[in-house]
Amino acid sequence: MSIRIRVINPNTSASMTEGIAQAAHAVAAPDVVIEAVNPTMGPVSIEGHYDEALAVPGVLDEIRKGVEDGVDGFVLACFGDPGMDAAREIAGGRPVVGIAQAAMHLAALAGRGFAVVTTLSRTAGRAWDLAEAYGFSAKCREVLACEVPVLDLDGVAEQKVAELAKEALTHEGVDSIVLGCAGMAEMAAAVTEEVGAPVIDGVTAAVGLVEAMVRAKVPTASKHEWAAPRPKTYVGLLEGFSIAE
Amino acid sequence: MSIRIRVINPNTSASMTEGIAQAAHAVAAPDVVIEAVNPTMGPVSIEGHYDEALAVPGVLDEIRKGVEDGVDGFVLACFGDPGMDAAREIAGGRPVVGIAQAAMHLAALAGRGFAVVTTLSRTAGRAWDLAEAYGFSAKCREVLACEVPVLDLDGVAEQKVAELAKEALTHEGVDSIVLGCAGMAEMAAAVTEEVGAPVIDGVTAAVGLVEAMVRAKVPTASKHEWAAPRPKTYVGLLEGFSIAE
Amino acid sequence: MSIRIRVINPNTSASMTEGIAQAAHAVAAPDVVIEAVNPTMGPVSIEGHYDEALAVPGVLDEIRKGVEDGVDGFVLACFGDPGMDAAREIAGGRPVVGIAQAAMHLAALAGRGFAVVTTLSRTAGRAWDLAEAYGFSAKCREVLACEVPVLDLDGVAEQKVAELAKEALTHEGVDSIVLGCAGMAEMAAAVTEEVGAPVIDGVTAAVGLVEAMVRAKVPTASKHEWAAPRPKTYVGLLEGFSIAE
Amino acid sequence: MSIRIRVINPNTSASMTEGIAQAAHAVAAPDVVIEAVNPTMGPVSIEGHYDEALAVPGVLDEIRKGVEDGVDGFVLACFGDPGMDAAREIAGGRPVVGIAQAAMHLAALAGRGFAVVTTLSRTAGRAWDLAEAYGFSAKCREVLACEVPVLDLDGVAEQKVAELAKEALTHEGVDSIVLGCAGMAEMAAAVTEEVGAPVIDGVTAAVGLVEAMVRAKVPTASKHEWAAPRPKTYVGLLEGFSIAE
Amino acid sequence: MSIRIRVINPNTSASMTEGIAQAAHAVAAPDVVIEAVNPTMGPVSIEGHYDEALAVPGVLDEIRKGVEDGVDGFVLACFGDPGMDAAREIAGGRPVVGIAQAAMHLAALAGRGFAVVTTLSRTAGRAWDLAEAYGFSAKCREVLACEVPVLDLDGVAEQKVAELAKEALTHEGVDSIVLGCAGMAEMAAAVTEEVGAPVIDGVTAAVGLVEAMVRAKVPTASKHEWAAPRPKTYVGLLEGFSIAE
Amino acid sequence: MSIRIRVINPNTSASMTEGIAQAAHAVAAPDVVIEAVNPTMGPVSIEGHYDEALAVPGVLDEIRKGVEDGVDGFVLACFGDPGMDAAREIAGGRPVVGIAQAAMHLAALAGRGFAVVTTLSRTAGRAWDLAEAYGFSAKCREVLACEVPVLDLDGVAEQKVAELAKEALTHEGVDSIVLGCAGMAEMAAAVTEEVGAPVIDGVTAAVGLVEAMVRAKVPTASKHEWAAPRPKTYVGLLEGFSIAE
Repeated sequence: MSIRIRVINPNTSASMTEGIAQAAHAVAAPDVVIEAVNPTMGPVSIEGHYDEALAVPGVLDEIRKGVEDGVDGFVLACFGDPGMDAAREIAGGRPVVGIAQAAMHLAALAGRGFAVVTTLSRTAGRAWDLAEAYGFSAKCREVLACEVPVLDLDGVAEQKVAELAKEALTHEGVDSIVLGCAGMAEMAAAVTEEVGAPVIDGVTAAVGLVEAMVRAKVPTASKHEWAAPRPKTYVGLLEGFSIAE
Repeated sequence: MSIRIRVINPNTSASMTEGIAQAAHAVAAPDVVIEAVNPTMGPVSIEGHYDEALAVPGVLDEIRKGVEDGVDGFVLACFGDPGMDAAREIAGGRPVVGIAQAAMHLAALAGRGFAVVTTLSRTAGRAWDLAEAYGFSAKCREVLACEVPVLDLDGVAEQKVAELAKEALTHEGVDSIVLGCAGMAEMAAAVTEEVGAPVIDGVTAAVGLVEAMVRAKVPTASKHEWAAPRPKTYVGLLEGFSIAE
Repeated sequence: MSIRIRVINPNTSASMTEGIAQAAHAVAAPDVVIEAVNPTMGPVSIEGHYDEALAVPGVLDEIRKGVEDGVDGFVLACFGDPGMDAAREIAGGRPVVGIAQAAMHLAALAGRGFAVVTTLSRTAGRAWDLAEAYGFSAKCREVLACEVPVLDLDGVAEQKVAELAKEALTHEGVDSIVLGCAGMAEMAAAVTEEVGAPVIDGVTAAVGLVEAMVRAKVPTASKHEWAAPRPKTYVGLLEGFSIAE
Repeated sequence: MSIRIRVINPNTSASMTEGIAQAAHAVAAPDVVIEAVNPTMGPVSIEGHYDEALAVPGVLDEIRKGVEDGVDGFVLACFGDPGMDAAREIAGGRPVVGIAQAAMHLAALAGRGFAVVTTLSRTAGRAWDLAEAYGFSAKCREVLACEVPVLDLDGVAEQKVAELAKEALTHEGVDSIVLGCAGMAEMAAAVTEEVGAPVIDGVTAAVGLVEAMVRAKVPTASKHEWAAPRPKTYVGLLEGFSIAE
Repeated sequence: MSIRIRVINPNTSASMTEGIAQAAHAVAAPDVVIEAVNPTMGPVSIEGHYDEALAVPGVLDEIRKGVEDGVDGFVLACFGDPGMDAAREIAGGRPVVGIAQAAMHLAALAGRGFAVVTTLSRTAGRAWDLAEAYGFSAKCREVLACEVPVLDLDGVAEQKVAELAKEALTHEGVDSIVLGCAGMAEMAAAVTEEVGAPVIDGVTAAVGLVEAMVRAKVPTASKHEWAAPRPKTYVGLLEGFSIAE
Repeated sequence: MSIRIRVINPNTSASMTEGIAQAAHAVAAPDVVIEAVNPTMGPVSIEGHYDEALAVPGVLDEIRKGVEDGVDGFVLACFGDPGMDAAREIAGGRPVVGIAQAAMHLAALAGRGFAVVTTLSRTAGRAWDLAEAYGFSAKCREVLACEVPVLDLDGVAEQKVAELAKEALTHEGVDSIVLGCAGMAEMAAAVTEEVGAPVIDGVTAAVGLVEAMVRAKVPTASKHEWAAPRPKTYVGLLEGFSIAE
């Protein structure tokens, strides 16, 4: 019986969803089905707290659909892991793993400390907040930005990323590199080649972790904090998110 | 010249906005104008991560209006401080203070450690996350729940809150009590009376802190992480949140 | 009814008390009365642990007088916050806020992290100790010294402070600047102008925080640790500090 | 092409190796080959620091053999993760994952906090040390002992484990249970059934994490700290561990 | 050549100085001379922040005399370690070790965690602050009070201390007991007898640590932060503390 | 009656044992007998996790002999403190102090922060792990390597060590230098001379701390975690380590 993993690209750019899908397919075990989707509402790319906060309704809508479709687990494929806690409330115990979370976990397994190489420096604060939340504030040593916007990531950006990665690896305690954007998934192989150290893409990492949880029969906790939301009316633009009794 | 503080109740229940307004008025300095509002979209009350995430679009809409109206600062009057970072990106340096943040800051000034007394235990995780983010993970000793939903807070709940507070104050390192819901603002005086120790309501605390920032001419940082959002298209239900060039 | 705040300059230099008074007046709300004083015993300036320890008896003497005079709260206007805990024991629940404490709290409200710009590098250790005690060891990123003694702070020093501030703001995670000496209160406006980011003077910050506590009716905890001192004889030079039965 | 995972039981009891092998097989993906082994030297069970330290030479001998045999990664199947750092030095970049490490990582992905239920209370210190090293000191809330020795784990012990787990799950912040011994692998399903929350066995968790690392092409860092050992003579009993030029 | 250690009892009660002297003598090496003194100014006992702050001038006076007398190192024999940093500024590199500091260091060497058993609960906050400052906040698990004032410590108190110690040793992670008052030095042997675990008196611990520093030729750092105080005028009651050019 | 301290050099190089013996003798009190030994099995030097792990059986063998010989305490004279926890289990409460542990404790007593100057950079990770375990992660500011192997330490290396030390002392918060290898014991005096700040050798520090514990009658905790190992069979090469009933 196969394992179905719904990979949600939290922005609305279908081309990026496609790249994410390919990266995920490439690492999935033979019995895993990858279903990559993106929401129908929200920002075309996520480059700050405002974008991220407003990507959440779309993410939650996709979680709801995935649950209806009976998938086995979810990947949130944006490095800010938007809407994680809310998603868990409606995912009924299915694993929900963010790509920042996943990449940081694998980096923690791969060495003593890591550097994140991200897109714009304005997103660094979020990366630090997540490292802290996940227990990795001491293992995350640096967050470096190539200063290329998400939708402009290309070969030139790849070279910048490789250079930042190489430099970071000369610093004490940096053993591996975490790529700080789902749009960098396709760079991982080339950057690894160039730097000769573990380079971790969150999309592939997250697929592996969701698999690991599903096979080991480890659900997300779904009591207390992450119990189903209380029945409640939502008004105005968001009334579709109301929770029926 | 007066100081205008826009107090945003992140849920859509006007009766609760009214209670918040009264609490804020009661502590405002003579030259401070309190403007209490609530969004036109979102949940009628906030009791978990899902509610909170989906309250954020409405909060951001109110921040935008407040900036257009030329207010001097904002209070986010829900104990989860929803949308704080995103709000800062569009507040143009105006102080944005959450009531959990404010209450914890005053508690840190008032003693060695505090206990939070909140509504439902499912919200405790968020309180702990905020304590950690604000630097108070060692000062926050306990988060206790009276298990009364937000919209049912009444005299009976007040008694439960007072009892939990009294008990917490017997524990080592607990010097003060933080009320964990904007709906508890009106309880502060009575609970203080009963427990004989500092009892801190976040609404009144936040009004004081926004005042302090405005008078001392301390804006929120508005570069880097909290610079204005990048121009960007939003699609579907949320297209109104697009940021023009 | 007005709020009376006793601002204690812990050193014995009246000229410095005057500067502190002006800074405090400038930010006080219309109903706040600022009363700036300094002790009759102790060092003419505070530039190290020895000076600070020996400033404490004078500070405590002023707290005692302020309580007798019926003031509403106290500011300790030296960046080492000398005698804070002892002061609380005799302040009968009145707020006692130090200027390092206040500046760090406002900096924590204003951004992700701050740099302290202080006078002599020998005082940096104390600044770090206070940041740790207040919960801000992760938010305090740097303590930089202009190497100008307290009583020599002038226009040249102001330029040095502005330069250090500008440099610090280019470092990751530094969003705002905390001025590390009460003698720098008058520099805040000019330095802000020059660096274009929040610059926080502790005197003005502390006035705001004492106001916030008084208006919100949040006393300092005055049980357990900060209960009134036990009746006790003091001998020799310090017999005047004896506590009667 | 299949993935070969060498699962090393660090003690010398073949019956326990068999149980571990079964647990590992049960969760392996279709293309994964599990090879369970145990050393020919060392203690018959590991129940303290002395046992663990002396299990390490045998573990290193098995790592050496696995590298010679060309396996893809290693699991250290004792909850003390004995010899991890030394193993990495000779594993040539192949993933080496300990079962305490793996279980704590999955627990961190599954909820806010976890309790470890272990065999003897004398092993609790090691569990705490590992939680700290892996970044999970705040997520590990309790370490509870059923006080049954490793080789005596049976149905009665299973019942004790379930009872301790149930109790722990009533404590604030405990969302999941980590089983603190490879000998408990077979209990996971039954305990899960009884407690209705995530119950995590390290053997199955570690197999999943090694798979995830191998598929995502994330090696263990093998430079600096974990570079191959320097050529060196070993004398006496341990001369076989010498490293040739 | 002998090693001279000046043991300063920071309160002015000669009878307590005598008990401290005896405890120190009992553990000194054959070539160590113990010189126990107390100040001529300050409180007769130290039971809170106010007492402690006002004990500091007397302590500093004794440090000055000890330096003039050419002693090799100092012990501050009150569990609040009053005036430590200031003392270092005038001790010219001679070791200055507090008894809380010393006891916590030995406890850290003796086991995983310790409980402090102190006099009055109002002093617990100071013990926690010191544990944090010295690096032992995770090793200090509890601070328990027998609620007997310093000058009333007697056989009955000893029994209470032993009972609290015994109870604490049943808690997870508590391996040893730290006695939280110089007045308890004489209890150590009897309490050890009764509890069967390490019981650490700070006076004897501090004598050992000063010896260790002197023999190993490890001075206190005396540059930067702890350089000699700057020349400065002190006024009023404290003019005797002025520092000449 | 004399105090007998068994100083164990964990590697098998007798020349290094001799140097360690001399350093220990030089600081021992008149009534202390130093007995320096090294194991008959294991690596000729320790320069990484593999070497260290495989030094442990030899160390434990020497602890066993020391207990049979009735010594009063042990020093583990390798900067990785190999086998500490296991050693405690068989030392029957006798103090066991590692030289990294001892040096870091004295450095913590001597100033605010320290830098470790070690041999090869591959050993830095272990130094950081120990600093964390002992409570000194905030006090350990840097670990610097002279890149000279252990058995090649000579006058040239001494000069490199002095230069690294001098540079480190210019960094904020570095007050003292910890020498990161037992082979550097003889350098301490010369390096101190050159840098003018506390330079701490772990061998001399550890002798002093064992003395302090023995004189103060503070054993290592020997219950729970560090109780005697459970009776157990060891097989193969290590059968000599079996624990009889």
